[in-house]
Amino acid sequence: MKAWQFVETNEPLVLNEVPEPVPGAGEVIIAVQACGLCHSDVTYMTHPGTKAAMPYTPMTLGHETAGVISAVGPGVTGWQVGDRVGVCPSGKGFPGFFTPGGFADKQLVHVEDLARVPDGLDISLGAVATDAGMTSYHALVVRGGLTADMSVGVIGMGGLGQIATRVAVLKGADVHVAEPKRDLWPLAESLGAAGLVADAADWKGRDFDLVVDYAGFDTAARAIDAVRPGGTVVTVGIGAPEFTIPSQALLWNKNLIGSIGGTVADIEDLYAMMTAGDLAPAYEEIGFDEVQRGLERLEAAQVTGRLVARFGS
Amino acid sequence: MKAWQFVETNEPLVLNEVPEPVPGAGEVIIAVQACGLCHSDVTYMTHPGTKAAMPYTPMTLGHETAGVISAVGPGVTGWQVGDRVGVCPSGKGFPGFFTPGGFADKQLVHVEDLARVPDGLDISLGAVATDAGMTSYHALVVRGGLTADMSVGVIGMGGLGQIATRVAVLKGADVHVAEPKRDLWPLAESLGAAGLVADAADWKGRDFDLVVDYAGFDTAARAIDAVRPGGTVVTVGIGAPEFTIPSQALLWNKNLIGSIGGTVADIEDLYAMMTAGDLAPAYEEIGFDEVQRGLERLEAAQVTGRLVARFGS
Repeated sequence: MKAWQFVETNEPLVLNEVPEPVPGAGEVIIAVQACGLCHSDVTYMTHPGTKAAMPYTPMTLGHETAGVISAVGPGVTGWQVGDRVGVCPSGKGFPGFFTPGGFADKQLVHVEDLARVPDGLDISLGAVATDAGMTSYHALVVRGGLTADMSVGVIGMGGLGQIATRVAVLKGADVHVAEPKRDLWPLAESLGAAGLVADAADWKGRDFDLVVDYAGFDTAARAIDAVRPGGTVVTVGIGAPEFTIPSQALLWNKNLIGSIGGTVADIEDLYAMMTAGDLAPAYEEIGFDEVQRGLERLEAAQVTGRLVARFGS
Repeated sequence: MKAWQFVETNEPLVLNEVPEPVPGAGEVIIAVQACGLCHSDVTYMTHPGTKAAMPYTPMTLGHETAGVISAVGPGVTGWQVGDRVGVCPSGKGFPGFFTPGGFADKQLVHVEDLARVPDGLDISLGAVATDAGMTSYHALVVRGGLTADMSVGVIGMGGLGQIATRVAVLKGADVHVAEPKRDLWPLAESLGAAGLVADAADWKGRDFDLVVDYAGFDTAARAIDAVRPGGTVVTVGIGAPEFTIPSQALLWNKNLIGSIGGTVADIEDLYAMMTAGDLAPAYEEIGFDEVQRGLERLEAAQVTGRLVARFGS
């Protein structure tokens, strides 16, 4: 089968012919139908430390996969050939880094990492929900502890911030958005944001219950000022290498917490919202042969909406 | 009655004759027997913003009080004249700032803020537990979620750090201490610390479950590096005006949280440990007439152990 593989730092992925995986106990094989392209892929390809951190190379990248089960290993129950599934990228496998990922015709996945794609859900959205969706959701709902009675600030209307804004609105919260690019404000309003500011500093004293920072450009201190005593700031974005906050900022029992990854349950809740038509992140489909070119577009910031490589016929 | 009152910023407290308080519904009067002196008192006396923040002046300071109930107001149940009590300083009254505090013969207290001092417990320890003790305990046990199976780092062996070290040991945790002053190491060992370092940077990669930072001299980044993914750093100290941490430091679901104050339940758990003889913070008793002189010693850093003003005969 074909697989786009990372071979060397700062070199393009190589489209290699590799053996098809064989499922062991508790594993399935997925015929990949969609795999999203992520800024993390670009980071892996360019960061000097990545190659040493991977258990081996060449390594097939891709960690935002959905497709159809094509084979099941011994002892697998509850999953059958033909089931449509998405793959949680932060579970057992950590695909596209520690194990071969989804930029390939087939992917081996542990059943614990499978999320069931509902009938009627486009398989590209099935992929987008697994990484961009899950990361955004987990920070907001699980780490942030979102509830319907909360007032929430979302910093950054990139892909993750857009999903979070919509999810928070769907969960019943009073949602406010900080985004310097005013051309994104109409989108935020269409997703249900109740208020918009260009700079989170304008939120000082707003006493939000929760702020989730998807930007990370030294926005942490402003986010902390925007939450009430006992309130929480979740940081997801790492736009700047470090941030500085006043020592007293957290004093009144405030919480500044990180978030990474998520769970199958996160993905399946996103699937439900997507299938109901309530959540529709923007994406652009490209062909399997265009993966390397798509990653170059990502690196050059020439992408709006998630890029999703579609496979097969 | 006599009361040490804050009148003007950067001026000594004034020993004034003031009317005795009268208890309203749900309130009691305490004949103060012991009131600890706190660095916060010095801060209130010297910070330019304090006077404007207080509801009125002159204001009787003192927020670490224990004594005996001398009168009870209407509707008070469960408390009687003669009961020995400590006063939670972060409850209804916020004494010594929003309401008259304990540097006086009598103090008015809401019953919700009363902690019962067990028989046999020295009343000076009864006072020390209410602020220094409670603040230290709350950060460690309540905000930090301390459990017996945890490995814990305590940064700073000042008064609060000493109490936390001992409490964590008593709760069954594996406790490690970071303190640059090596003359404090024997004390830490005597309290049960399993390991000592001069600089929390030496803890990098130790994967502690919890670190509580009672120093706050830009130690946050080192504390975060010392906890495992999903681990928690509680900041209490504000030794430096701000701190800088790498944006990625919190990424792996780490938590950096503030803590202030505490509850009556915190104080009563401390009382139990003190009464059993397991927890014995160092303190030095001074006379009621020495309160201003004691505060000057605190400001000049001429104090080891808590200073406690003792009242009456």
